[in-house]
Amino acid sequence: MSITLKKNRTRTERRLDEALHDLRAAFGERISTGQSVREIHGRDESWHPPALPDAVVFPRTTEEISFICQTCTKYGVPIIAFGAGSSIEGALIPVEGGIVVSTVEMKQLLDVDSISFNCTVQPGLCRRELNEQLRDTGLFFTVDPGADASIGGMVATRASGTNTVRYGTMADAVLGLEVVLADGRVIKTGSRARKSAAGYDLTHLFTGSEGTLGIVTKITLKLAPLPETIASATCAFSDLENAVEAAVAVIGSGMGVARIELLDELMIAAVNDYSKTDLPVSPHLFLEFHGTTESTRAEAELAASIAADYGGEAFQWTTKAEDRNRLWRARHDCAYACMASQPSKRMLTTDVCVPRSALTECILQSRRDAEEKGLSAPVLGHVGDGNFHMALLIDPEDRGELAAAKSVASALVERALAAGGTATGEHGIGLGKRDYMRREHGDNAVDMMAGIKALFDPDNLLNPGKVLPD
Amino acid sequence: MSITLKKNRTRTERRLDEALHDLRAAFGERISTGQSVREIHGRDESWHPPALPDAVVFPRTTEEISFICQTCTKYGVPIIAFGAGSSIEGALIPVEGGIVVSTVEMKQLLDVDSISFNCTVQPGLCRRELNEQLRDTGLFFTVDPGADASIGGMVATRASGTNTVRYGTMADAVLGLEVVLADGRVIKTGSRARKSAAGYDLTHLFTGSEGTLGIVTKITLKLAPLPETIASATCAFSDLENAVEAAVAVIGSGMGVARIELLDELMIAAVNDYSKTDLPVSPHLFLEFHGTTESTRAEAELAASIAADYGGEAFQWTTKAEDRNRLWRARHDCAYACMASQPSKRMLTTDVCVPRSALTECILQSRRDAEEKGLSAPVLGHVGDGNFHMALLIDPEDRGELAAAKSVASALVERALAAGGTATGEHGIGLGKRDYMRREHGDNAVDMMAGIKALFDPDNLLNPGKVLPD
Repeated sequence: MSITLKKNRTRTERRLDEALHDLRAAFGERISTGQSVREIHGRDESWHPPALPDAVVFPRTTEEISFICQTCTKYGVPIIAFGAGSSIEGALIPVEGGIVVSTVEMKQLLDVDSISFNCTVQPGLCRRELNEQLRDTGLFFTVDPGADASIGGMVATRASGTNTVRYGTMADAVLGLEVVLADGRVIKTGSRARKSAAGYDLTHLFTGSEGTLGIVTKITLKLAPLPETIASATCAFSDLENAVEAAVAVIGSGMGVARIELLDELMIAAVNDYSKTDLPVSPHLFLEFHGTTESTRAEAELAASIAADYGGEAFQWTTKAEDRNRLWRARHDCAYACMASQPSKRMLTTDVCVPRSALTECILQSRRDAEEKGLSAPVLGHVGDGNFHMALLIDPEDRGELAAAKSVASALVERALAAGGTATGEHGIGLGKRDYMRREHGDNAVDMMAGIKALFDPDNLLNPGKVLPD
Repeated sequence: MSITLKKNRTRTERRLDEALHDLRAAFGERISTGQSVREIHGRDESWHPPALPDAVVFPRTTEEISFICQTCTKYGVPIIAFGAGSSIEGALIPVEGGIVVSTVEMKQLLDVDSISFNCTVQPGLCRRELNEQLRDTGLFFTVDPGADASIGGMVATRASGTNTVRYGTMADAVLGLEVVLADGRVIKTGSRARKSAAGYDLTHLFTGSEGTLGIVTKITLKLAPLPETIASATCAFSDLENAVEAAVAVIGSGMGVARIELLDELMIAAVNDYSKTDLPVSPHLFLEFHGTTESTRAEAELAASIAADYGGEAFQWTTKAEDRNRLWRARHDCAYACMASQPSKRMLTTDVCVPRSALTECILQSRRDAEEKGLSAPVLGHVGDGNFHMALLIDPEDRGELAAAKSVASALVERALAAGGTATGEHGIGLGKRDYMRREHGDNAVDMMAGIKALFDPDNLLNPGKVLPD
């Protein structure tokens, strides 16, 4: 046992100047303390107030990240990993200052094994660029959050997206990791094999740990074969209830639908404005089917007939890449569409995930709550997973509005937990959901998580103030 | 922080008599110290030498298991959870004695949510019985190791099986757990939602921990819809190399094959004898396709044409339930067929999993190694996953034979690790693979695993002597 816990977790006195001195000597122009660079790395895409780091470093290798961690541990300085900055839960805001470790110079696709369907990447590579580079292999990386997030950030957040109903989340996609611990030690987890029963599952422990247990420096990912045919469809409904129930019925049919997304009429209006689409302003399902020409046609026809049972109208499907890409780009840009609809506001996004049997009631009640508070709250959902988002548009400076939004969000989480669900399906805990941790997991489980944090990061230097409650 | 590590892990002096006294008072006739009961609970299905526990308890509730753990912690007595006893790595042999906690009286299916595709079970329920009980729901539990294992044991081992290539392993199937810790505290992990990004992933940490971090008392499992049509197929090949390469090519085609299993000619001979089949004695692939009548026909035809490219002969497929069930029962009974082929011997089973790109060479070289040592070693593999087993039949009392088998197995593990694979795809570490832990994961990762063990089980009472190396 080389690890011991510091009982009181008294942090080494922070000696920032000395840390900066050592880091400057090693990184030269690849460390910045300039105001604008610090500002860019002190905020995410959420309503959470930004905070300034003391410096930003741009390493290129695992060894350099190890050196940063050793230095920061020596001088008691916090370390915050930063990918694309697309968190919407404040997960990377340096609330206690410290050194931001940007992975922007670590964007390499290191290798692809096209027979075994996997690849290994550096953490700064973003998902769209990865798929561009994979194009000629006949394979693709399946996890697609709205933002063009970095793979490292997606590991940290345990991200998912619209393909999850068929292909799974980052928890399913990560085969193995290389991770630098707080003290600079490098560990490897998992392997390139599709499965393993060899010891404790450190890969899943780091996946979703939001940079609080270690800094991910390499990721081996599962890939999937590009389907022969992809068919996309949209279908409009007269009300939200029917749209949700149609989605639940499509999943219940057992077909392997690749995407099934709900957008309510507020979201459709925002999408039409932002992405120049001309969808009827009513609740919609966006669907996608992967397979052969025959199987996608059969699935689309079955889905259309199920949708019709719930009053679905104007079921339109296409296999044209141009139309598909436009549709899904509009879907992925939903968060930006919401923000553009009220440019003076910031977004407080809910992210509950519930058993599908509780989904309809959960969405409808939450919409009623928002309406009662007079809040604009477009809804979109990965309804195949039971996961949906309300985008509560608020002025964070307006105390009344912020309090109203928090109260709607809080009631929604309570409703989700009562139904056996979770406070966050894919955005992570960050700053925004720490207060729900004990409600969701119970004191005993949170105590064990705190023990794990203390084991991996005894000085509490890795992304402090995140995930665990105070 | 309510958890502190005992630095030297000095175990409380074992006071067995007092523990037995307290347990007898609570359990009456549901605790046994009889020789035959202890013998049954002191062995598994492997070559590893049995060991006697001091007593076996038969609890019915979480609270009773909590009481057992409190009592054992109070008196420093080891605690070993026991399900169906079907481990083949010695994972449940009580090498330090102690109290075996049988889950045989905890076999309830607690609830099924047929809309959300999940169910919650007690740990003693076995997989065949679970699927019997689910039959009318239109859903099934997908993970199918050869043995009729208990669900609790399958969680402990991170088990998988023939359906894994399409549906995943226990790591994919477990949504949430209730676990009793060594000191009797009860924690809950995960939820009933399909995904979550809420904090550290304790569910995956317990899954595969082989009863060394806690005792699982409830499991919430993902289920899958029963396919409309199931088609099974067999295909014979003139040599092993072509059979493996055909399997890799079928996977590479991107079709969603549900099962693709390799059996070499030695395994086919054993199966013919044990299961009264009359397959040609040559390497085979067994396949299964799930979908509609049309899609399964299309996939079977594509697979047949790929197989033909590799010299596959006699591709026969059927959708008759009776024929299918007979085929897969024979496949699941392979381990028993091997043992029956040489009843005086025990089985030392290898379990490497490698990237599919390394599979052919890995299987062929290992067969050559076994042949050179004069060992009978039928091969079967979940080749879609890159996972295969050699069943080395040995007399554990014959030192030369045991050493020869260990040397073949060891060379195979080294080969798998060099190819980026793992020592164990699905059987777990148990006693048999502890010596490979540092080779596979490296010292730093194993040290962190030891830290996790010390955090959850500071007195080292939960299934001591397993998973971690000395």
